[in-house]
Amino acid sequence: MGYTDAPDGWWREFVLASPARTAKLAVVRADGSPHVAPVWADLDGDEIVFMTSADTIKGKGILRDPRVSLCGDDERPPFSFVTIAGTATTSADPDELLAWATRIGGRYMGADQAAVYARRNAAPPELVVRVTPTRITAKVDVAN
Amino acid sequence: MGYTDAPDGWWREFVLASPARTAKLAVVRADGSPHVAPVWADLDGDEIVFMTSADTIKGKGILRDPRVSLCGDDERPPFSFVTIAGTATTSADPDELLAWATRIGGRYMGADQAAVYARRNAAPPELVVRVTPTRITAKVDVAN
Repeated sequence: MGYTDAPDGWWREFVLASPARTAKLAVVRADGSPHVAPVWADLDGDEIVFMTSADTIKGKGILRDPRVSLCGDDERPPFSFVTIAGTATTSADPDELLAWATRIGGRYMGADQAAVYARRNAAPPELVVRVTPTRITAKVDVAN
Repeated sequence: MGYTDAPDGWWREFVLASPARTAKLAVVRADGSPHVAPVWADLDGDEIVFMTSADTIKGKGILRDPRVSLCGDDERPPFSFVTIAGTATTSADPDELLAWATRIGGRYMGADQAAVYARRNAAPPELVVRVTPTRITAKVDVAN
């Protein structure tokens, strides 16, 4: 397959595209093996923000080691993807939980459903996870 | 979000759905951090088969530690996903490379393009990677 680097900054447009794609979050488990699962995410400047519960494999992995990898892709030919390696910080602050649960719920389910998702996700053990990118790989038209 | 376990065996149907989804492959880098990127994949019985190059982060990770995680998801509401943890074996056998490059190229680009992709991918340092699942997580209608 071909791997053409995307233009500078294209990754932000890709991450913010509508309808919202899920991000596939990879963490390392306690036994040193990898784990990947989808999360709902949004951008705040150049930081990726998502929520997960402190008692999931994702949450426990991040609390153990803040290094994560996130991937989003266009699954239709000619295929494109972004992979972001970064360092996570977490917050269980009630105001942050409510603000991000509302914003992210609205992004994925529509503004009219945002409050439903906020009520469901804006409480411990949920965490707001904020990832500062350390390496961004963005490839377009992989099949060309 | 809700996490409803999918019916037994649903994961195979999901993985084999058409048009073909990409799998997001997670491996662990030499420094112990996770890495995730998309791959084209297919099923052979219950084994997941994909190709990657021995000189990529993906390939080097697998050659260092055969434990991998693969995730595919439906990014539309109400959202569903499969995550498969497993153990990888690799092959650089020319006949296997040609057979799988043809089959996987055809799956993602159409039968008429399979030979093009086979010519491109059926030679070292490409590897055929075969993953035997050790744990399959399949969740449907996550947003319900």
